[in-house]
Amino acid sequence: MRRRVYDEDHEAFRASIRQFLDRSVVPHVEQHAADKALPREFWLEAGKQGFLGLEVPEEYGGSGAGDYRFNAVLMEELSKVNAALSSCVGIHADIVAPYLVELTTEEQRRRWLPGVASGELLTAIGMTEPSGGSDLAALKTSAVRDGDGWVLNGSKTFITNGYSADLVVVAARTAPEKRAKGITLFGVETAAAGFSRGRKLDKVGQDEADTAELFFEGVRLTDDDIIGEVDHGFIHMMQNLPQERLGCAISNLAHAQQILLETLQYTKDRKAFGQGIGSFQHNKFLLAELFTQADVTQAYVDQCVLAHTRKQLTAVDAAKAKWWTSQVQNEILDHCVQLHGGYGFMNEYRVARAWRDARVSKIWAGSNEIMKELIGRDLGL
Amino acid sequence: MRRRVYDEDHEAFRASIRQFLDRSVVPHVEQHAADKALPREFWLEAGKQGFLGLEVPEEYGGSGAGDYRFNAVLMEELSKVNAALSSCVGIHADIVAPYLVELTTEEQRRRWLPGVASGELLTAIGMTEPSGGSDLAALKTSAVRDGDGWVLNGSKTFITNGYSADLVVVAARTAPEKRAKGITLFGVETAAAGFSRGRKLDKVGQDEADTAELFFEGVRLTDDDIIGEVDHGFIHMMQNLPQERLGCAISNLAHAQQILLETLQYTKDRKAFGQGIGSFQHNKFLLAELFTQADVTQAYVDQCVLAHTRKQLTAVDAAKAKWWTSQVQNEILDHCVQLHGGYGFMNEYRVARAWRDARVSKIWAGSNEIMKELIGRDLGL
Amino acid sequence: MRRRVYDEDHEAFRASIRQFLDRSVVPHVEQHAADKALPREFWLEAGKQGFLGLEVPEEYGGSGAGDYRFNAVLMEELSKVNAALSSCVGIHADIVAPYLVELTTEEQRRRWLPGVASGELLTAIGMTEPSGGSDLAALKTSAVRDGDGWVLNGSKTFITNGYSADLVVVAARTAPEKRAKGITLFGVETAAAGFSRGRKLDKVGQDEADTAELFFEGVRLTDDDIIGEVDHGFIHMMQNLPQERLGCAISNLAHAQQILLETLQYTKDRKAFGQGIGSFQHNKFLLAELFTQADVTQAYVDQCVLAHTRKQLTAVDAAKAKWWTSQVQNEILDHCVQLHGGYGFMNEYRVARAWRDARVSKIWAGSNEIMKELIGRDLGL
Amino acid sequence: MRRRVYDEDHEAFRASIRQFLDRSVVPHVEQHAADKALPREFWLEAGKQGFLGLEVPEEYGGSGAGDYRFNAVLMEELSKVNAALSSCVGIHADIVAPYLVELTTEEQRRRWLPGVASGELLTAIGMTEPSGGSDLAALKTSAVRDGDGWVLNGSKTFITNGYSADLVVVAARTAPEKRAKGITLFGVETAAAGFSRGRKLDKVGQDEADTAELFFEGVRLTDDDIIGEVDHGFIHMMQNLPQERLGCAISNLAHAQQILLETLQYTKDRKAFGQGIGSFQHNKFLLAELFTQADVTQAYVDQCVLAHTRKQLTAVDAAKAKWWTSQVQNEILDHCVQLHGGYGFMNEYRVARAWRDARVSKIWAGSNEIMKELIGRDLGL
Repeated sequence: MRRRVYDEDHEAFRASIRQFLDRSVVPHVEQHAADKALPREFWLEAGKQGFLGLEVPEEYGGSGAGDYRFNAVLMEELSKVNAALSSCVGIHADIVAPYLVELTTEEQRRRWLPGVASGELLTAIGMTEPSGGSDLAALKTSAVRDGDGWVLNGSKTFITNGYSADLVVVAARTAPEKRAKGITLFGVETAAAGFSRGRKLDKVGQDEADTAELFFEGVRLTDDDIIGEVDHGFIHMMQNLPQERLGCAISNLAHAQQILLETLQYTKDRKAFGQGIGSFQHNKFLLAELFTQADVTQAYVDQCVLAHTRKQLTAVDAAKAKWWTSQVQNEILDHCVQLHGGYGFMNEYRVARAWRDARVSKIWAGSNEIMKELIGRDLGL
Repeated sequence: MRRRVYDEDHEAFRASIRQFLDRSVVPHVEQHAADKALPREFWLEAGKQGFLGLEVPEEYGGSGAGDYRFNAVLMEELSKVNAALSSCVGIHADIVAPYLVELTTEEQRRRWLPGVASGELLTAIGMTEPSGGSDLAALKTSAVRDGDGWVLNGSKTFITNGYSADLVVVAARTAPEKRAKGITLFGVETAAAGFSRGRKLDKVGQDEADTAELFFEGVRLTDDDIIGEVDHGFIHMMQNLPQERLGCAISNLAHAQQILLETLQYTKDRKAFGQGIGSFQHNKFLLAELFTQADVTQAYVDQCVLAHTRKQLTAVDAAKAKWWTSQVQNEILDHCVQLHGGYGFMNEYRVARAWRDARVSKIWAGSNEIMKELIGRDLGL
Repeated sequence: MRRRVYDEDHEAFRASIRQFLDRSVVPHVEQHAADKALPREFWLEAGKQGFLGLEVPEEYGGSGAGDYRFNAVLMEELSKVNAALSSCVGIHADIVAPYLVELTTEEQRRRWLPGVASGELLTAIGMTEPSGGSDLAALKTSAVRDGDGWVLNGSKTFITNGYSADLVVVAARTAPEKRAKGITLFGVETAAAGFSRGRKLDKVGQDEADTAELFFEGVRLTDDDIIGEVDHGFIHMMQNLPQERLGCAISNLAHAQQILLETLQYTKDRKAFGQGIGSFQHNKFLLAELFTQADVTQAYVDQCVLAHTRKQLTAVDAAKAKWWTSQVQNEILDHCVQLHGGYGFMNEYRVARAWRDARVSKIWAGSNEIMKELIGRDLGL
Repeated sequence: MRRRVYDEDHEAFRASIRQFLDRSVVPHVEQHAADKALPREFWLEAGKQGFLGLEVPEEYGGSGAGDYRFNAVLMEELSKVNAALSSCVGIHADIVAPYLVELTTEEQRRRWLPGVASGELLTAIGMTEPSGGSDLAALKTSAVRDGDGWVLNGSKTFITNGYSADLVVVAARTAPEKRAKGITLFGVETAAAGFSRGRKLDKVGQDEADTAELFFEGVRLTDDDIIGEVDHGFIHMMQNLPQERLGCAISNLAHAQQILLETLQYTKDRKAFGQGIGSFQHNKFLLAELFTQADVTQAYVDQCVLAHTRKQLTAVDAAKAKWWTSQVQNEILDHCVQLHGGYGFMNEYRVARAWRDARVSKIWAGSNEIMKELIGRDLGL
């Protein structure tokens, strides 16, 4: 069904992203995968084109669009190239940026935002710890008061952009006894003494994304590095969840939709037993089901995008979008692999990589089980 | 998520339907089930309240709203009482009425429409035949030219409202050699000589709906009984498919949503092992999944309602809505039964009846397999 | 695959059951459904043929086969006629009989077993209570010591054979403070003062089975009515669980297998678009899947039957068989309905009734959720 | 449930394999993955231990056990290390060997079998072609009569062991007009002029298996290279299908069972919110389901193993085992990944690799769709 979310301005923006991607990104995706990272030139070029500053006010070098649909268009187009691209850009421009805009002092905004928008200051966010998974209340990384400042110790893992980041928003425990209520966010510049990174993690998919473990050994911080209020980190993170989950949802679905379209074409082109394999009734019905599933899901995601554009998207509705789209994405892509036969198992085929890439979407950003827990609570259970 | 399809006028209309249902219908549903039919008083009362004439222009006694959202609200509220109610009213007011409004002569409109709107002329539609199922091209009921008129022979089965109808729109073969292109629609008044009905069929569910086999033995018809153009019946039916399928989709989902809400409450009230059974993690996650599935599906159905309100809904998008909602409805209701434990197997519980009622929605109005065939063709397969 | 569980003796026994069923049962199934009960003549005839005494030693009038495979053959053949038949006979001959044989005094055996084997003493078992579901520790029916005897108060629900039974094995609380360890089993003869029954319950399926609520108001019992040891009821019930669950599993699968075979034939006979509908690739693949699923499941059930014949079947393996087969049964039958199109929704078709009948198998005899809980514990979780 | 397929001899054989694997294989699996191949030392060592000659008669250097259960034990133990190991050994010792034993001349047996058993002559089988997939009748590789000999032209793809093989059994068209009936098998030694290989394919999983495209450009063959009868290749391949499919089934399931056991342990060790994550009810029920699914499937596979040991396994029953196990394997492993959280997406975790490895099992050796087609035909559809 024709989508009715976007108007001409959004579509013009989409065209400009596509042009950028076709020219500056698509020719290099093999290199990105081999490097297990996007190069700094990518970030600088994306910044120059204005794709990193959608959340950054104009006075700090961004475009401050104030219309989430531009973010949504950006995520869709990045995902169509590959999932890692939207993951990395999403973390930087769609997830970290709002923390730096909304919770910061004027000094911090001047210090950080221009680089965020230009791509010169690459960002990441450090919540997850090796031992903790989704249980933020069990956070072990600590920031201990020391004179005027703080001393940070601990480690974070599975950090997207972690290997390349210049600035990491780190959640640390500042009040040991207060569980979730004793967490504070810090902006940690990765040039700081005591900061180090593990190797780039060898992942099942999203090869192009640099993902790393981060270590903090006696990193000294000042009050000027605090993002938001002391001991309010949990609340700050909660407030940013709808956008984070929605970003995942948009990317998950656009990614699956794109590969599904490519697979449809493949099943028309590929012949067996004298006909296009998509015309066998089993495949025909399967493709009918997958396109239905994708369309139905798009309707919900679009509804969420509109709600978020109106600042009305709840964390629970975003949780629904997140888990559902990741499930749909993985189901669609598994069938797309099958429709490719043996080629679906070869990494040189886009469908094979997409299948590997997608697997993490059911796990990260709050696993689907966590999402269901939250939705269940919202039902009064 | 808050739905944004309806405005104040629709909600006022909804309130009036609810009032009617609470007062005039709900107290009698046991009787309807025992009678295997809705009584004529129901139809007359619904007609008086203006619920049967949404598709009928004012000059013929209807309200001619011209806004499909009123139809949608009607179907939703009927479904919440039980599925048979929306099936029977839907056939009459939402499916047959458009044939009688759009394809008829002035004389026919004057003859039929006032009774449709008032409930005095109850209608049904006869497409399916015992041997034919979904294969309209295999239609055996024939209307043979005889002098100025036609002679109708054949039979139809699974006809909702069939036992009570005063007027049946019958698809008959008028050009034997032309397959789907040789079908004509006739308005057959059931008082006609040669018309008879079998017994009310004993169905798995939707007990309250009268469903019957109809027999035509030498029924004489005139050209004034032709609805639309001779040999154009297939095209006429195709044109009405989006609304028929959408009506199914709206009802399927509203039906499941209502029982799901009731089941949620049940799982809070029912205790086992010292807690509300809905709070067990397995049930909590399950309910989270079902509510997500319902919300996602509602977004698509609402998008379809808006598209149809703008006269832009395609037959293929309606086919997607039809099969998907019937699948979702049956899945949700099966889980709702399970959440009720042994009570879910007892007919006195609404969930048990709803489960039985829903099963046909994957079969009728074009089986889900037929829907997938159509969607597959639309994909170029 | 050829099954290798049964030898010639079992197959001869199967032939004799079939003969009995074809002659004495199949012609009356419509009447059974209308009566919501099997008539006493059925029980007496089955008793005369020796089908009720497989668990009863010869000295008390049974055949005391001591080879569970005869029980299994009996359940299979009954299920092929309809599910209620194997439910009712299973409760009496396969589930209650072992309690009366293994836990009883010589006096009790003489009092009860001859009637069990002959069908003159029809039995039921009363565990489930309206408020309690699967939570035996929450049992409210109580037997209070009063002089030499006991006074029984409480009620039981969903009792198969409850409306016709002459003897009910009742689980009652004898030590209020000891939770599951304070339960005692009593043999309650239904002629006793203070015993009464509710109406036959109106169920979604298994119409032929009489199912009722039972009430005990000051029923006086003696120590001679105790089955097993005082306060050991829970343990006694646990010991009989493997056979009860296995009986369910055998019946569930045989029931589904039979309808699946009938459906295969239907899809060959029924034509649409010029061919047998089973030959459409979608249906062909679906049937291939269902037959595979049935064969795979049969292998497991047969393995359980052999283990139980050797007295080695564990409660946990039986729990696996119970939940898995009920899931498979319901899935297969739902597809079989769909393959029948509109006829699948008509009660005169065996597939329609089978679909309704099967729904309870996921709920009763310990719901599938309870089975998973037990299996999970066995895994050390 | 305790399996009853194997006796003491089989278990002793299992112990010897395990010892070999623990000592000579497990320490090197990282190297195998990095090399994208098993080294020749592995093959020679396995040959020396007697693991490659189960199908080879003693007079040619094998053990000629004549009891398929030894093959089954071998596949199970290899799969537990990783899927590629059983794939590579399976192709050589379980799939190719029977061709070379049963269809060959005395001269051929002397030429080839000792090397097969010792690991000095590594084998592969070439059926699949780039354009053809599962459609053997569309085979394009041709062997054209040329004097006393034949000239082979064409290519094969997705050939396991293809990069290392010394001998490839190649299916080639010898009678162009006879479709499936014009195919002949040849033993092509890879030292032959005109034979070449593409690079090792970059696969989604089973990194340790060398898989390659093979090219035949005017390779000259003699009648002594024909395996079986001219133009009977299709029949020869059909005869070997039960064993090939069963080998897949055994490996698929053992692979999943092993990772499932490891995952169970992980969910006990890994804590979140203060408890082992396996104890959360959602996970507990899920694990209960997966273990049930594995046990049920094992019963069927074991039944197939016994049937094949008796030479009674049909191609259709083997097809059921093949598709069902591959489906089960993939479902189980996907859940195992999820239970590992973020670690499930890291290649250093066995579960992550297993998940990638398993994906091909639904595709190769006759895709699951082909299996369903065959089963459907066997049902008379």
